[in-house]
Amino acid sequence: MAISMYQASVPRFVNILSNLSAILDKAQAHVEAKKIDPAALISFRLFPDMLPMTRQVQIACDAAKGAVARLAGVEVPKHEDTEQTFAELKARIAKTIEFVQSIKPEQIDRSEDRDITLKLGGKEIAFKGMQFLLGNALPNFYFHVTTTYNILRHNGVEIGKRDYLGNP
Amino acid sequence: MAISMYQASVPRFVNILSNLSAILDKAQAHVEAKKIDPAALISFRLFPDMLPMTRQVQIACDAAKGAVARLAGVEVPKHEDTEQTFAELKARIAKTIEFVQSIKPEQIDRSEDRDITLKLGGKEIAFKGMQFLLGNALPNFYFHVTTTYNILRHNGVEIGKRDYLGNP
Repeated sequence: MAISMYQASVPRFVNILSNLSAILDKAQAHVEAKKIDPAALISFRLFPDMLPMTRQVQIACDAAKGAVARLAGVEVPKHEDTEQTFAELKARIAKTIEFVQSIKPEQIDRSEDRDITLKLGGKEIAFKGMQFLLGNALPNFYFHVTTTYNILRHNGVEIGKRDYLGNP
Repeated sequence: MAISMYQASVPRFVNILSNLSAILDKAQAHVEAKKIDPAALISFRLFPDMLPMTRQVQIACDAAKGAVARLAGVEVPKHEDTEQTFAELKARIAKTIEFVQSIKPEQIDRSEDRDITLKLGGKEIAFKGMQFLLGNALPNFYFHVTTTYNILRHNGVEIGKRDYLGNP
């Protein structure tokens, strides 16, 4: 017995993406209660040359769909980065979850040694499937979800780590 | 073939902890170059009721050592939370890496179904080994490393996602 590539990917992405969607509900409720322009949160950056909240959510979604698509050897679905509201970001997350859940265990399992090439900063980087999932896709995914969380937390949205971890 | 519990834990924690240590070097160089009191960064919180940077690093370390110790069924080493400087935080990371690396694959492998009970917010939560590692320990670990990163980034330390991901 061991961990299958499916177990280490699809249910993990789905859990955290669902939690992220619920966190955005709390952010939406926060801006409504405080009569804040939602754009003030959605476009917020923790530092001027960091990416705004919208991009953090979009990249988290892309990390999830890109990982399962590459491991399954199917085309990565293209989602345009057009979201401007919490509702649109939640729809982006929902369609990402739908795609991730459409991939079956038998499409991902035994992809440990699959060759995966990523373009990072203009350079091609070669990975094996397991190294890609554990060393790149998952930490990158958690990075962007946590940064979204930190942007909201920094702006006073009342969320806690429980909202991020959910019920795994 | 699949992912062993060891492969999903020890090398992952060690890689990111090493990256975190190198990130602290950059933070140290930053405060020296800008003549900033290091305590201004080390005690910084992204919001008044969030934990300061020191605690983020300490908890990331605890997540790593706690995970491998629990999976291996050995006592979790106690590290006192006394760090006040970048050098001391780096030493904390170094002793965490040393402990994590002391655990052998045969101690962790086949711990997928091991019963693990965590006290979270005063409540006992029961996990199986794989669910604990993939659904709690790893996302929690990445959360605190990323929050450390975001605190430093928010304060102008010039680091990038490459510093966080390293060479997995």
